Amino acid sequence: MNIGFIGLGKMGFNLVSNLVRHGHTVVGYDINETLVEAIKAEGAQGFTTLQDLYDALPEKRVLWLMIPAGPLIDNVIEQLLAVMHPGDVVIDGGNSHYQDSLRRHAYLKEKGIGFLDCGTSGGISGALNGACTMVGGDADVIEPLHAVFNDISVKDGYLYTGPAGSGHFTKMVHNGIEYGMMQSIAEGFEVLQKSQFPIDYEAVARMWSHGSVIRGWLMELTESAFKKDANLDEIKGRMFSSGEGKWTLETALDLGVPTPVIALSLIMRYRSLQDDTFTGKVVAALRNEFGGHAVEKK
Amino acid sequence: MNIGFIGLGKMGFNLVSNLVRHGHTVVGYDINETLVEAIKAEGAQGFTTLQDLYDALPEKRVLWLMIPAGPLIDNVIEQLLAVMHPGDVVIDGGNSHYQDSLRRHAYLKEKGIGFLDCGTSGGISGALNGACTMVGGDADVIEPLHAVFNDISVKDGYLYTGPAGSGHFTKMVHNGIEYGMMQSIAEGFEVLQKSQFPIDYEAVARMWSHGSVIRGWLMELTESAFKKDANLDEIKGRMFSSGEGKWTLETALDLGVPTPVIALSLIMRYRSLQDDTFTGKVVAALRNEFGGHAVEKK
Repeated sequence: MNIGFIGLGKMGFNLVSNLVRHGHTVVGYDINETLVEAIKAEGAQGFTTLQDLYDALPEKRVLWLMIPAGPLIDNVIEQLLAVMHPGDVVIDGGNSHYQDSLRRHAYLKEKGIGFLDCGTSGGISGALNGACTMVGGDADVIEPLHAVFNDISVKDGYLYTGPAGSGHFTKMVHNGIEYGMMQSIAEGFEVLQKSQFPIDYEAVARMWSHGSVIRGWLMELTESAFKKDANLDEIKGRMFSSGEGKWTLETALDLGVPTPVIALSLIMRYRSLQDDTFTGKVVAALRNEFGGHAVEKK
Repeated sequence: MNIGFIGLGKMGFNLVSNLVRHGHTVVGYDINETLVEAIKAEGAQGFTTLQDLYDALPEKRVLWLMIPAGPLIDNVIEQLLAVMHPGDVVIDGGNSHYQDSLRRHAYLKEKGIGFLDCGTSGGISGALNGACTMVGGDADVIEPLHAVFNDISVKDGYLYTGPAGSGHFTKMVHNGIEYGMMQSIAEGFEVLQKSQFPIDYEAVARMWSHGSVIRGWLMELTESAFKKDANLDEIKGRMFSSGEGKWTLETALDLGVPTPVIALSLIMRYRSLQDDTFTGKVVAALRNEFGGHAVEKK
């Protein structure tokens, strides 16, 4: 199939390589000329304007966006609307909020343009060698594209999740689960680290990756991280986040679902970004007020 | 190697089959005659008294306990002390508290008897086909047994964790992590379930098991559970626990390690065992007191 691919960052670039390897004809676009030149070396065409990208595609164009979630998606969609025709399809392969995807689906449908929301998991290596994709959208729009999603995914790693929005919703929940699993693994390693035992973290993560109940890719990545830096001395414990954990918690609250583990995973990320807390000062001050307990002076 | 195996329950029985398959000479013991007869069919000897088990083993006996944690371990150790000789080795393969294992190690060492604490993961299928084992104890005691632990474990699934107690400590933390990972997965599926989308849980769990960041054995088991019962209509959401999550939290509190995810995983298990809560009544009553908010009558 002919595919126009918009955004040649780490994920997008590898997905294009993956598509080309599976025999698809890909036209790539990025504002970064270096990336455009690099993607040509992978066997794709490449352009730095959306008009050129669009013109290089045959009718019923498939335009795959792999760009940061948020207003940039709407911005690119508006630019595309200046050139697109009914029957074209836009795929959003990024981590957009499912409610944005519902809105974009409705907006484009009015203009006769299909919209698919594709959650993409498996990291950069998965994008290149076989991803995990969960895609929502109208059945007639996705029908000709099942084979493409199957091609770029590992076996059984592609699922058509149903109506528009369900792909990004499922990916949002996947990431919420990921937050909780990562925090749980990390808490366990800190208990090991503070214990009386001289634990080899890399060795434990490798052993747990083989035959244990908690084996899985995240434990293998834990082994890999400790292999590079036995005690993680070289990095700080600051845990950034890019939205999906917060959205999962907000959605859970809206739906009335108690999700304490996902909530606390997110909150511990926020806490990790603070060197000291005003909460801590208030509690310390109150203990001093009622009990004369010592406070540490700044 | 010759091994005396005490406790032929689901885990013990399968571990004996596993040992026999690897060429070890195993003498099994259980109070349950049916299990003793069954283990003979697996190629082991079998007895219903500890004296017979002991007498069937050559000197420097290895006595592997796979029985419920707690006082029963001390009870069996006392019975064995009536017949054991210096140079014998006791392996506790169950989920004992690491502090009990430290105590038992010191107690038996005084009498010239070796003690190894072996955490065993991977479930019943792992016990049969290749487990994950983490073993603590004196280096000279474990030295002749490395090959045995390697035999019953999957490749790279055995680790000598170090001094006495470290095997059960590592297993305790493994189970604490397991609590958090399971709760996180489960919370995610409840968000899917309460959503506006018609999600096929089995299909999602299968897709997430292939190429996603959260792939692993627990996700495969999630798929398996939904395959048997698409909406889990046939079971109640009561989450029992057998101690290791509570021990991990207690240990974390003693060590001053903040483990909110492991803590909340345990607390949600406790909550699941209550149909209604006194906490809930108190909060409902207080809302009524100060704001006249409605309470539901019993």
